[in-house]
Amino acid sequence: MPEIRHVDWSRLFSPRYVAVVGASDTEGTQQRAQWTQVSARLGALGAEVVPVHPKKPEILGTKAYPSVSALPADPDIVIVLVRDALPVVEEAVNRNAGFVVVFSAGFSELGTAEGDAADAKLKELASGATRIIGPNTNLNIFEPWPDGLPSKKKLAIVTQSGYQGRPITQAQALGVGIEIWATIGNEADLEWADFVAYLATHRPDIGAIATYVEGFQDGRAFQLAADACAKAGIPIIAIKVGRSEEGRVMAAAHTGHLTGADAVHDAVFEQYGVIRVDDLDEVIEISNMFCHTGLVGGTGGIAVYAMSGGTASHLADLFGAAGVKIPKFEQSTVDALEEYIPWYLRRDNPVDSGGAITARPENRKVLELMLDDPNTDVLFAPITGVFPGMSDALARDLVALHQKFLAGEGKPVVAAWISPIRDEAYKSLCDAGVPVFHSFGAAVRGLSELGRYSTFVRDYRSPFEAETGGPASDERSSARAAARDLLAGATGAALNEVTSKRLLAAYGIPVAGERIARSADEAVAAASGYGYPVVMKIVSADIAHKSDLGLVVVGVADEAAVRATYDHLLAAAASAAPGATVDGVLVAQQVTDAVAEVILGVSHQHPFGPTITYGLGGVFTEVFKDVSFGVPPFDADYARSMIEATKGVKLLRGTRGRHAGDIDALVDIILRVQALAVDLGDQVAELDINPILVRPAGKGAIAVDALVIPAKP
Amino acid sequence: MPEIRHVDWSRLFSPRYVAVVGASDTEGTQQRAQWTQVSARLGALGAEVVPVHPKKPEILGTKAYPSVSALPADPDIVIVLVRDALPVVEEAVNRNAGFVVVFSAGFSELGTAEGDAADAKLKELASGATRIIGPNTNLNIFEPWPDGLPSKKKLAIVTQSGYQGRPITQAQALGVGIEIWATIGNEADLEWADFVAYLATHRPDIGAIATYVEGFQDGRAFQLAADACAKAGIPIIAIKVGRSEEGRVMAAAHTGHLTGADAVHDAVFEQYGVIRVDDLDEVIEISNMFCHTGLVGGTGGIAVYAMSGGTASHLADLFGAAGVKIPKFEQSTVDALEEYIPWYLRRDNPVDSGGAITARPENRKVLELMLDDPNTDVLFAPITGVFPGMSDALARDLVALHQKFLAGEGKPVVAAWISPIRDEAYKSLCDAGVPVFHSFGAAVRGLSELGRYSTFVRDYRSPFEAETGGPASDERSSARAAARDLLAGATGAALNEVTSKRLLAAYGIPVAGERIARSADEAVAAASGYGYPVVMKIVSADIAHKSDLGLVVVGVADEAAVRATYDHLLAAAASAAPGATVDGVLVAQQVTDAVAEVILGVSHQHPFGPTITYGLGGVFTEVFKDVSFGVPPFDADYARSMIEATKGVKLLRGTRGRHAGDIDALVDIILRVQALAVDLGDQVAELDINPILVRPAGKGAIAVDALVIPAKP
Repeated sequence: MPEIRHVDWSRLFSPRYVAVVGASDTEGTQQRAQWTQVSARLGALGAEVVPVHPKKPEILGTKAYPSVSALPADPDIVIVLVRDALPVVEEAVNRNAGFVVVFSAGFSELGTAEGDAADAKLKELASGATRIIGPNTNLNIFEPWPDGLPSKKKLAIVTQSGYQGRPITQAQALGVGIEIWATIGNEADLEWADFVAYLATHRPDIGAIATYVEGFQDGRAFQLAADACAKAGIPIIAIKVGRSEEGRVMAAAHTGHLTGADAVHDAVFEQYGVIRVDDLDEVIEISNMFCHTGLVGGTGGIAVYAMSGGTASHLADLFGAAGVKIPKFEQSTVDALEEYIPWYLRRDNPVDSGGAITARPENRKVLELMLDDPNTDVLFAPITGVFPGMSDALARDLVALHQKFLAGEGKPVVAAWISPIRDEAYKSLCDAGVPVFHSFGAAVRGLSELGRYSTFVRDYRSPFEAETGGPASDERSSARAAARDLLAGATGAALNEVTSKRLLAAYGIPVAGERIARSADEAVAAASGYGYPVVMKIVSADIAHKSDLGLVVVGVADEAAVRATYDHLLAAAASAAPGATVDGVLVAQQVTDAVAEVILGVSHQHPFGPTITYGLGGVFTEVFKDVSFGVPPFDADYARSMIEATKGVKLLRGTRGRHAGDIDALVDIILRVQALAVDLGDQVAELDINPILVRPAGKGAIAVDALVIPAKP
Repeated sequence: MPEIRHVDWSRLFSPRYVAVVGASDTEGTQQRAQWTQVSARLGALGAEVVPVHPKKPEILGTKAYPSVSALPADPDIVIVLVRDALPVVEEAVNRNAGFVVVFSAGFSELGTAEGDAADAKLKELASGATRIIGPNTNLNIFEPWPDGLPSKKKLAIVTQSGYQGRPITQAQALGVGIEIWATIGNEADLEWADFVAYLATHRPDIGAIATYVEGFQDGRAFQLAADACAKAGIPIIAIKVGRSEEGRVMAAAHTGHLTGADAVHDAVFEQYGVIRVDDLDEVIEISNMFCHTGLVGGTGGIAVYAMSGGTASHLADLFGAAGVKIPKFEQSTVDALEEYIPWYLRRDNPVDSGGAITARPENRKVLELMLDDPNTDVLFAPITGVFPGMSDALARDLVALHQKFLAGEGKPVVAAWISPIRDEAYKSLCDAGVPVFHSFGAAVRGLSELGRYSTFVRDYRSPFEAETGGPASDERSSARAAARDLLAGATGAALNEVTSKRLLAAYGIPVAGERIARSADEAVAAASGYGYPVVMKIVSADIAHKSDLGLVVVGVADEAAVRATYDHLLAAAASAAPGATVDGVLVAQQVTDAVAEVILGVSHQHPFGPTITYGLGGVFTEVFKDVSFGVPPFDADYARSMIEATKGVKLLRGTRGRHAGDIDALVDIILRVQALAVDLGDQVAELDINPILVRPAGKGAIAVDALVIPAKP
């Protein structure tokens, strides 16, 4: 089983000796401010922090050393503030530094040969025991955060940009405590996955990881880190740049990251439960919510308490559009609510109290009945406007019930506060640890993820530990051997159709039978092997446009027809193209009961490597991009979800009197293609199976045509 | 030309005499609070406001009357606070009241026979000169709003819910002045369109209309009101419930509104420039922006000033995903920015200053250069986190430049403020009239609408005043007459294919020719009229499954073949079904060069009436719902945009070596179908033309099959 790489994080987080290269005492410089700040912060952790300066004997009262080489002891951390970082990093590596933090830019993000060379040198220096953070980063990772905020759990922040992380730290105003903020820059060595895997396995107080990412360095490392979070039940709430070409170009120029294919990232995020959002307010508010609430029980049933029919209608509409089902209450709850809510308003979920009772004790009774209902796992109370006497009274009730029910039954209260006015009532919610959203959109998304992620974690099976299906292990060994033979000597040019299909057959993928017959008897033998009808066509490299010349005959129905067609084709070829060399007549299996044509492909997708693409053929893929992706490893359930994720699945389900297709057979083929992709990842650049004919349920699916492009040798 | 209905609004907004029925002096009652408030507010406008109470001679010092009938003068407004409203409304109507405001619920929203009957009674009472507001509304329309806020124009708010409107009024905290807030309830009489048309034509200070709507009563009235807004250049920023079934059900229960088909609303909104959003924060922030900025020039080019490469990447990604093109600067601007922005950061749009210059005078220089660039129509500056010394310095620059450039060149500055912390710098932006967004999502949406709507208004042609194309007027008169003949005596059952196609032909829509031949000569005459090949099939009501019996022959290629086929079909019919009555042989035009099959339909869509649906056939409509809608009246440009709006247009554009289809011919057919739908709206319940074969450009398009379902008589 692949593993997260080992990093000795204690030297970073509990350092004893730290050198700051480029520390300065010149008034007004950034380097002076950085020295002052970082020496104080790391000093507070018990480290000795010393400046390195080529000339000065001391910096602001602390003895300085002329170089890293001249330090009296091996440093745990070397912080590099000078522009020309490489020589310093080299010295630090020679002194067995635990970590080097590189501030300066000028590496791969330049997109120049010099930048790339500097990046390569940095990577080379990172090949030993010294870990590098950056380049193009800052010192946020050493920032201390106040204790005593109301959130149950703390928030960890990992960003590839400082300014994009700053507002997330300010979620403290919403009552959430910060555990750590790691800004990770260009990731020449230590990458997102290293930090996140560390957080998931070493920091038990974390309730969520909020992240801004432009691109991941290594797909497998990402998968392992996300897997660690899923196992630990820590949601990752992520902005990932790459929705558009414009974003991809800018990201490459900013941190040198390649963003990769966006839809593939979405597929992997889905597989590991990563909550991808598009906006900073969503990152802030959803991660804030998870830190306050923890995961919830049941299916995450949301009870909505509206003071108005308009708000109830609007939220019902938004939850419905998001595909989130608001549960009905038990009849006993509805009956009990009759006492408090007038007959012309709504007593079931979403409740519309009409607002009149809001400032009265009955209001709290209503909320308690809603929370007591067994279908409720979380109570959501939107406050649209500030309305003195009502919004403040409701906030008081929400605070009281949040504290009571979260401690008791683990049922949190979540609020939305829409008004631009933020009064004392607003502040009271934040101070009491009630998660507050500032738009219905973020609230609907957050609440739906609360239930979805809580369920996801309970049901999670790591794909790294699960059986991935496909060929059995001995079958797979011989498949691998056969495949290597077929690919031996490949030059990077596409394999022909016959060889490509043999590769599929080696992995147990059913391919349409075909055989070149050199006599009518051979043709009959082939045809009776496949079953009737068959397709017959002339085989000749000298004749183009065979269909137009009548040299392809479909629907050849029985033995007599095979014999007649064999003779007819030879005669027709002789007449249409006198003198052409004819190699025989191809007899091919003809599938007459296909329910749908699907395609499967394997391609290398940055940063994940071999990736399986599935979809229906024709306009489904060409016009609508109705495809789904699988990044290994995945199991049969996931393969099935790939099929279910496309709109084209309707055709496989048997619409309008059509037969349902053999989805089980298709799942098996996807898993066999996965095995092929994993085994031959280095040797196969691209595989396209187009089409696979899916027959009625129980009758299988069969690949009709395939094309393998080997990797360049 | 249809017109907005006339309402004498002066009696509502400048009343002289007002009666409040149900006014009370009982401590703690809502009716006492309402009396106190409304008598003060309307009194301040110069009205005499009197209570009506069955027993008390006076209410809180004002002489009361026992009934509306007993009032000494006809009231301009009667406000009805009592639950049993109908008898009071009747009295008010008898007293020629200008307006009656009905507070109580209990009408159509109940979904009961009693509720519907009460609603019908209310509508009947509204048939004369008295206008009714409500039922199920409140007194927000009389609320006075403070003057002196910084916004250039004022905000008008129209909502079908009080609580959903309250937070929009609190946009005052963002510096926007409120013109009026109309809560309109169930709209038994006065509806959304009446208020909005009034605002567009009578209130010149309005910069935007913010609205929350569950459903519109009358589609045509809506269109006219939205048309008035488009002509006045006033954007409507709308939440419209109806995205999901759950929302539709709740809305019906709340205000009794039918939400109607959502995608049809989207089409109409698009046509009239209505900006539909899903969230209250978007309504607030986008309408706030329009009130501060007014419309902008050029194409609404957005210059983005980021302090960080991360923020620049994220925004480039979001603008790109939203389809908004950020313009490049002139080379001279980029060159000038070199002086202030270091070489490794980005000097073109979006600019990444890196943050270091933010607190220095150079920052304002950079912003000025960006605003001076001719490609810039609006400057957008996101502030992600509060970072003292930087965020406050940037805010100062933004305030100064907004005021300078908006007054000068009409180029506004727009800011985003993401942090949950809202400090003095935040407040300074709001106080200075700089529009502030609180999420990138709302900002990207708002800024894209600023350019789009500004361009829309400049290019707007009212469809009520434009030529809608289709058949010429004399052709149309005879078409209408012919159609009425064809529909005469219809019972609600579908017309047969032949009659349906005659209806199309009457409106000049090309239909595939077909004729029943009773001799080989007749068959040849028909075929040579259509051109070869043709389809031939036996005509007999006694024979089913003609294709299976070989009684349909396609691709009949020439005169000899027609004669042979004619004889063959009669013989085959006699052999397959001895004794069947054969009426002849149908000879039909066969289109062999179709590029695509499309469908066109007419159906009645609440609240708009006859609506045209367009799409490609097969999976395009069945699986992907890839259709577009046209609600009359619309012109040829709109018909073309219906075609362009579908993804299937790719097939018509000629992909992968395929011919481009005759889109012009299709546009003409859509306009003819529009004419048919408008002329026969009362008589045709549904029309489906499926398929229309679109031939290569210049060759036309032809309807092959059609089905007309007449309206129930």
